[in-house]
Amino acid sequence: MILLYPPVKIALIGATGIVGREILGLLEKRHFPIKTLRCFASLDSKDKSILFSGENIPLETLSKDKLHNIDLAIFCTKKEVSSKWIPYLARQKTIIIDNSAAFRLDPHVPLIIPEINLAELANHNYIIASPNCSASIMLMALFPLHQYIPIQRIQVATYQAVSGAGFHAMQELISATQAVLEKKAYTPKALPFPSAFNLFLHNSTLNADGYVDEELKMLQETRKILSNPHIRVNATCVRVPVLRAHSQALNVTFTQEICPEKAYELLEKAPGIKVHEDRLKNRFPMPIDVAGQNDVYCGRIRKDLSYANTLDLWVVGDQILKGAALNTIQIAEHLL
Amino acid sequence: MILLYPPVKIALIGATGIVGREILGLLEKRHFPIKTLRCFASLDSKDKSILFSGENIPLETLSKDKLHNIDLAIFCTKKEVSSKWIPYLARQKTIIIDNSAAFRLDPHVPLIIPEINLAELANHNYIIASPNCSASIMLMALFPLHQYIPIQRIQVATYQAVSGAGFHAMQELISATQAVLEKKAYTPKALPFPSAFNLFLHNSTLNADGYVDEELKMLQETRKILSNPHIRVNATCVRVPVLRAHSQALNVTFTQEICPEKAYELLEKAPGIKVHEDRLKNRFPMPIDVAGQNDVYCGRIRKDLSYANTLDLWVVGDQILKGAALNTIQIAEHLL
Repeated sequence: MILLYPPVKIALIGATGIVGREILGLLEKRHFPIKTLRCFASLDSKDKSILFSGENIPLETLSKDKLHNIDLAIFCTKKEVSSKWIPYLARQKTIIIDNSAAFRLDPHVPLIIPEINLAELANHNYIIASPNCSASIMLMALFPLHQYIPIQRIQVATYQAVSGAGFHAMQELISATQAVLEKKAYTPKALPFPSAFNLFLHNSTLNADGYVDEELKMLQETRKILSNPHIRVNATCVRVPVLRAHSQALNVTFTQEICPEKAYELLEKAPGIKVHEDRLKNRFPMPIDVAGQNDVYCGRIRKDLSYANTLDLWVVGDQILKGAALNTIQIAEHLL
Repeated sequence: MILLYPPVKIALIGATGIVGREILGLLEKRHFPIKTLRCFASLDSKDKSILFSGENIPLETLSKDKLHNIDLAIFCTKKEVSSKWIPYLARQKTIIIDNSAAFRLDPHVPLIIPEINLAELANHNYIIASPNCSASIMLMALFPLHQYIPIQRIQVATYQAVSGAGFHAMQELISATQAVLEKKAYTPKALPFPSAFNLFLHNSTLNADGYVDEELKMLQETRKILSNPHIRVNATCVRVPVLRAHSQALNVTFTQEICPEKAYELLEKAPGIKVHEDRLKNRFPMPIDVAGQNDVYCGRIRKDLSYANTLDLWVVGDQILKGAALNTIQIAEHLL
């Protein structure tokens, strides 16, 4: 496996975004061995800097002449930016971890959740992809069950926080809510529709078959990460007025029966997952419990009374952490 | 059929609650033929009055001596209040429409959604039940399809507004949100958990099998309303920070194939349902579209790629109107 040798010369592309900022925090908190850290952002941030470990790092804009002498490039950018710059860096033998969808389904690019398919990392050829946040959170909860009894079909409805649409979407939910409380008008900019006290079907591209990209990613990335092209996933993705952490109502059909007690037992000992419930208080994971937490929380596992070999479970995860920044840093740590 | 003869002597029990107030509005707006209207509320409202048609109606508290000379009693109260007073009124040959769960599953009580099973109304023996709001909204969208090809199984995840938990819950969401924006502490009272920018599994009673009452109502009431004891329903009910209107992600398996185009055609001509979507703008029904609307809105009907004979659809309805007050008034109108 092509490895990183510490201390590492890092470039963070998309440093000012919500995932970029979280990555800076994790690099510091987890004492990642850094030799040099360079931060890139869009033209809007020209001549600005960003704080890391008490030091102001100047923000650079991308250009070929600047992309040299980098061991690890972490991309937290839109798909288009990743597509444009990553092949160039890979040819220079820079290892890249990409958070966008640009290379996730490329058969030459491993799509990694370390708790699930770390072995695939050995096959990387400089480019490594980190999965979609909804897929990551769902698979963290389902993989320990799937290892015990294979999953046949997943039916999922999501309750996705606005932060999945970026920093500006989070600020917009706050401003829009303030406006509603003050009975003032507010025109959404970061999100396509009013977010305050409202919800809407996920705003990724709608395809001819009626599915949005986010829903198709949950299918395609699940198949790739579990190395199972037959697993079936039907998702409905919804944006809710929550700031941070995605929730999911999962209905999962296995090839054989699995009882809730066994599912609890498997999830209680699984890494990165926390069973979090108090049935006496009718209390299960909520977004405010999970915001800022590394673990994906789950609870209220029950037998689906309507269909054989099927369980319902409720899962909540911080999509900026395990859904993006944390997963990226975990991959980087495994490359050391 | 035992009928009401206009003008009608009405008693509204639970007049100050969120459904009671909406019923007063509908009685006025729809020119229901009223001879006398008496309004009942809890002891908290003693010596207060409520406005109806420009007139102040004194609020009375329930007692046997007051429950005479009433043609129609409309209950918008908790189950316990309905259970206590309705049998007494029925013995006096007062027709009762009850919004609580107290009599819904009683085999001698018709459970009516006029667009679906109006014929059952003829069998009433003074007591008539109006269904659970989530069941009503779901069945309004599914009945036109079920008539064409029978439904085998419904898999549903709900996104329920706080107003389903009453007027105080709505006020609490506003106050709690204001507190979060001002970075102040707020202790929930009407709802069991913090509602601002958060969500939680439905707060009805949790049963030993892991289902809450709201989820079991969606199963049991569906079977009764569709007169089909075999239909299977698996629900996950979630309370979201929306003021009014419940949304639902439905995944519905039919006994035979039904294409999305046919489903659209059936729903476009069904009473009480509105197909509401703009695929070019990726825009489907949202709670803020539907709050205050009589019709249940639906859209984004698509073929489930993961399972045969199955459609996904997205439904949003004002649970105070079609989910409660409007359905009640429609039943009363059919009794005239």
